[in-house]
Amino acid sequence: MRKMNVAIVGATGAVGTQMIKLLEDSSLPLGSVKFLASKRSAGKQLSFRGETQTIEELVPESFDGVNLALFSAGGGISAKFAPEAVKRGAVVVDNTSHFRMDPEVPLVVPEVNPEALRKHKGIIANPNCSTIQMMVALEPLRQALGLKRVIVSTYQAVSGAGNQAMEELKQQTQDFLEDKPVDQWQANILPCGGDKKHYPLAFNALPQIDVFAEGGYTYEEWKMINETKKIMEDDTIKVSATCVRIPVMSGHSESVYIETEKTATVPEIQALIAEAPGAVLEDDPSQQIYPQALNSVGKKETFVGRIRKDPDEEKGIHLWVVSDNLLKGAAWNSLQIAETMYEMELL
Amino acid sequence: MRKMNVAIVGATGAVGTQMIKLLEDSSLPLGSVKFLASKRSAGKQLSFRGETQTIEELVPESFDGVNLALFSAGGGISAKFAPEAVKRGAVVVDNTSHFRMDPEVPLVVPEVNPEALRKHKGIIANPNCSTIQMMVALEPLRQALGLKRVIVSTYQAVSGAGNQAMEELKQQTQDFLEDKPVDQWQANILPCGGDKKHYPLAFNALPQIDVFAEGGYTYEEWKMINETKKIMEDDTIKVSATCVRIPVMSGHSESVYIETEKTATVPEIQALIAEAPGAVLEDDPSQQIYPQALNSVGKKETFVGRIRKDPDEEKGIHLWVVSDNLLKGAAWNSLQIAETMYEMELL
Repeated sequence: MRKMNVAIVGATGAVGTQMIKLLEDSSLPLGSVKFLASKRSAGKQLSFRGETQTIEELVPESFDGVNLALFSAGGGISAKFAPEAVKRGAVVVDNTSHFRMDPEVPLVVPEVNPEALRKHKGIIANPNCSTIQMMVALEPLRQALGLKRVIVSTYQAVSGAGNQAMEELKQQTQDFLEDKPVDQWQANILPCGGDKKHYPLAFNALPQIDVFAEGGYTYEEWKMINETKKIMEDDTIKVSATCVRIPVMSGHSESVYIETEKTATVPEIQALIAEAPGAVLEDDPSQQIYPQALNSVGKKETFVGRIRKDPDEEKGIHLWVVSDNLLKGAAWNSLQIAETMYEMELL
Repeated sequence: MRKMNVAIVGATGAVGTQMIKLLEDSSLPLGSVKFLASKRSAGKQLSFRGETQTIEELVPESFDGVNLALFSAGGGISAKFAPEAVKRGAVVVDNTSHFRMDPEVPLVVPEVNPEALRKHKGIIANPNCSTIQMMVALEPLRQALGLKRVIVSTYQAVSGAGNQAMEELKQQTQDFLEDKPVDQWQANILPCGGDKKHYPLAFNALPQIDVFAEGGYTYEEWKMINETKKIMEDDTIKVSATCVRIPVMSGHSESVYIETEKTATVPEIQALIAEAPGAVLEDDPSQQIYPQALNSVGKKETFVGRIRKDPDEEKGIHLWVVSDNLLKGAAWNSLQIAETMYEMELL
């Protein structure tokens, strides 16, 4: 059995922490494991499979002897260090947006397009969190019914913006309970660390994730639009997105409208979801059963419910799609890519 | 000048409290004012224009001598007492859903269809909160461009479910900050007081408002669908809705997609909103300016931003629409109906 020497880049972040937990339970046969982070975090210790490990500072030589490097430390770090890792013989699974639209880099949701992994040249990109769960829900419908159009409005959790953003929401929540006026709440990160203005998220809804780009859309919205077409390998699918941050810690929810080529009944659509890999049907209005962000936390699956036909469009379907953005949206999808590559003997 | 004797039914509720505040500043020439509520609340005192008033128990005779009765105490109360008020000569503006789809009852957003008030037979219905703000945003676009289709996903505040629901969210939030496990959070009201199961809303998103009805849609969703067609007096507009409660105290947000008959540029659409009665344009991505629930609290206007063309549909437009659900969504629209009727000499 080929032993994998694994490096986790960004080991102290919100996603990195989840990656470490998942790696402890992974089916990958592990050789050495190393945890890499910025100079600031180097020297800190953490526990892995009962043993104490010391976090090392990320340098190009960190990747000597590494087979698999899981990156989740920001686009700038990936841009600089992923090629260094590849040069030293590692396969990189990158959770940032940096390489996603590079035509040389496969963008993979293992339930949807595992075959794209065969074309890799060292780097595989993990899609955006909000895209991944939508792909798990829509791929079985695309396969059975054809997919012409997607309109999605998201309800995204703050953990996608990192640990500090979670702390910021928590502090604002505390301020609210102490009746501190809103203009005294601290907002230094959200809606987007890299942008000029910051707004409170507690008891609010912020229709901005990432910075604004072409046509009045944010990058997060363009990610959902462009990544959907790349993963499904179909540029003719019409996709639009409105991405919104809400005061939820973990678990992204999505209100998704699609138009298909063929007509299907609700029970037929439910059956397609129920049989789909990675998807769990939670859909019984008579029992008030539908996916909820709080219930998704810590689970690897994507939950789908509120399935119903559009009142006026025979081929229009509405769905409510929920998943743990730190797991299927990030850490789990990345590790799942690695496990899939191992099974396919690409690693 | 005709003096108005006004009764507020449901004076102690979340909406009633706002109605009283707004009535203090109203342009209506007030004669007597009386505050009606259930037996439980009768005898309590409140201040109105500096004078102490005692809340009275609601009985049919409460309406003797009343010209205008503003109802917001639940559909059952309206069903029973609104006809009693009309019988005694009052005009009723009802904030519940009870009479809204009655063909004999005008359903009015004063900026949109004030002429419908002329057909009233004693009762005027105030539309659903989430419908009202969408109508203020879409009517100027309908008039200028024609309106073929609406797909809306809502981000609704908890105050729409009443004072107790707000307290429930506050308590769950406290439980979260004290690290109490989610399964120990109290949930007795949300998502919907009248339904069987209850779920926590804090740090969650609940895709159920009101109980489930035909086709897997909730009543809240059917309200948005049916009321839009009635207010715009056009059954050919295709409307679909997904209504979601999020942990916000006040201020409903909506992600609205529309298809128009004519094509328009973003600046043209922005100009239509900027000139529309009751609407405020907040739309400058370069300055991160967009409507926010927290900013809408206490304001009467409907805020519109994130205006952009669909990437694939020339006549498809996306908008983000926010308003204080207790004000324009309920108390203010009700009082505005009364003020409009007074100006039109219908009261």
